[in-house]
Amino acid sequence: MDSITPNEIDIVRASSSKINEIDFENLAFGNIFTDHMLMCDFRDGKWQKPTIKPYEPFLLDPSAKVFHYGQAIFEGMKAYKDESDDVWLFRPDENFRRFNASAKRMAMPEVPEDIFLGGLHEILKIEKEWVRKGKGNTLYIRPFMIAIGTGVIAAPSTQYRFMIILSPAKSYYSGEVKVIIAEHFSRAANGGIGAAKAAGNYSAQFYPTKLANDKGFQQIIWTDDATHTKLEEAGTMNVFFRINDTLFTAPTSERILDGVTRKSIISLAEREGIDIQVRSVLVAELVEAAKNGSLKEIFGAGTAAVVNPIVGFSYQDEYFELPKIENSVALKLKDKLTNIQYKLEEDTFGWTVKI
Amino acid sequence: MDSITPNEIDIVRASSSKINEIDFENLAFGNIFTDHMLMCDFRDGKWQKPTIKPYEPFLLDPSAKVFHYGQAIFEGMKAYKDESDDVWLFRPDENFRRFNASAKRMAMPEVPEDIFLGGLHEILKIEKEWVRKGKGNTLYIRPFMIAIGTGVIAAPSTQYRFMIILSPAKSYYSGEVKVIIAEHFSRAANGGIGAAKAAGNYSAQFYPTKLANDKGFQQIIWTDDATHTKLEEAGTMNVFFRINDTLFTAPTSERILDGVTRKSIISLAEREGIDIQVRSVLVAELVEAAKNGSLKEIFGAGTAAVVNPIVGFSYQDEYFELPKIENSVALKLKDKLTNIQYKLEEDTFGWTVKI
Repeated sequence: MDSITPNEIDIVRASSSKINEIDFENLAFGNIFTDHMLMCDFRDGKWQKPTIKPYEPFLLDPSAKVFHYGQAIFEGMKAYKDESDDVWLFRPDENFRRFNASAKRMAMPEVPEDIFLGGLHEILKIEKEWVRKGKGNTLYIRPFMIAIGTGVIAAPSTQYRFMIILSPAKSYYSGEVKVIIAEHFSRAANGGIGAAKAAGNYSAQFYPTKLANDKGFQQIIWTDDATHTKLEEAGTMNVFFRINDTLFTAPTSERILDGVTRKSIISLAEREGIDIQVRSVLVAELVEAAKNGSLKEIFGAGTAAVVNPIVGFSYQDEYFELPKIENSVALKLKDKLTNIQYKLEEDTFGWTVKI
Repeated sequence: MDSITPNEIDIVRASSSKINEIDFENLAFGNIFTDHMLMCDFRDGKWQKPTIKPYEPFLLDPSAKVFHYGQAIFEGMKAYKDESDDVWLFRPDENFRRFNASAKRMAMPEVPEDIFLGGLHEILKIEKEWVRKGKGNTLYIRPFMIAIGTGVIAAPSTQYRFMIILSPAKSYYSGEVKVIIAEHFSRAANGGIGAAKAAGNYSAQFYPTKLANDKGFQQIIWTDDATHTKLEEAGTMNVFFRINDTLFTAPTSERILDGVTRKSIISLAEREGIDIQVRSVLVAELVEAAKNGSLKEIFGAGTAAVVNPIVGFSYQDEYFELPKIENSVALKLKDKLTNIQYKLEEDTFGWTVKI
């Protein structure tokens, strides 16, 4: 995994660090970046030597394919610091595997493990001061790849740039999260790219989400595009529903991202003896459960959002408020998950990897 | 339309032109750009003053939203030179209108007419030598807009860049075009962004198209993602089917681009007394027509491809070769269309606009 040794990466150190200018207690998500970035180009059919260098803008041609055809993918990961000042990753192999699955679907070259995971280890060693101690503090990791080859013909690029940038982060959503169930707009097509972390999947949601925001809702729970009867995911999070004492979440598919937090929550629920069923949940079931009082919780799960309780949902202009409950399964699972991530509980799954 | 006068655009002239280095007889599509580009940024809630300046790379932050969320749209247009050395556009109002429809769907600001069309007039005046005389010679025009605001949070940017770049072009497809009818992969979802010229729509097709290329086919005719029974469009072209003496093309929808060439072909066919029906064509109908000999022609229509005859299609691993026919409707309509574009016939529709 860390088979890249420093002499296989060009490292150019920043002349000074901006870390002392950062107010770590008041961070907006994803706006501040650390002192360095990793950059590695693919050209002439192969990956070149990666470089870690000061975070800075770079030049691209106006005809770069990322601008015209959206050939771009990313991952979201986090680094955590334990009480002994050691830095940890959570299931990085899952992000690495998914990144290359996205690359394949977008006709981009796969990134070798020594560059993706090896490079990540190296840059995290350099930026370890940016990972702050204390539950809730993380260093958000954004590996991404863009098509940098030139030409306005709709065909895959022959040149790509893989990068890792790092952003100190607290929570993704602040405040209550209320959602709208999608009735018209959709996130993904059957046979489309919904399962890939492809750039275009996200901007496609901006307009419908803006309409939802204007009505006072933070997110949309997407439904299948053909019938809008099946609940799928929330775009930045997978979604779980608790009806009585059973948790439900949709199976992954071509339309639904195979979330690392989602699969970790499923494993934790199973370990904790919580009844969990991976199956499609119908909108009609959800509305019925809300009406008869059996719907106890809805929550989102994702790397950025962690586990995020949803306080209510709207469907066909009717708003359903979730009950205020004790013994929230969402909060229990969030606690179990973050205790593993921050090394406060034993990691019986072997999910954590030390830098 | 050309309400921008030169003193409202900053113009920085290239110190020399590279036009004499260009082999205009041997142009690969979209690889060579003219001496200048137009650039105009949106920030602080408004469009800034546009600049025409030498074509060159520009700097972007690694966290620019176009890289991570694919918030990017474009248009494809062409300029034509007539025998009197005048330069003409073809229905530029249609591209302008569609560009802003795409902007709305992608939660981007609309570009004002004086910047889009006024700016285009100005840059074409400067680059008029790049538009070559003679049918088949064009200057391909690529207006596009990208999100340049920074931050790795999945939300619309507050800063954008609108650009126009120009590329001398001959034909888009060289050689025969054979297509595969999509049976698994899809281009667009109901309630998705298929009707927008959004960057992500194009890279989503690269992998399935590569699989088609590997089998010896140049393009895919996409079908509806829910049932794969209805023929839609070809990604870079709308598609027409001639069964006996009737032309069919799918109605535009949320999944199908409202092509300027498509609608021009419909108008021309009507004027020429060709029976044309705008309705969904089923895959089963097409296969049946191919089997009983009533399928005479299939052709694609798009700005880059113009009118492109398709010589055969594959469905469920069976290949159907189109007949070699005289009196091709595709070639007749292509001739009528290009005669208007190059001012060789009277433009009774008022489609052409002089620079």
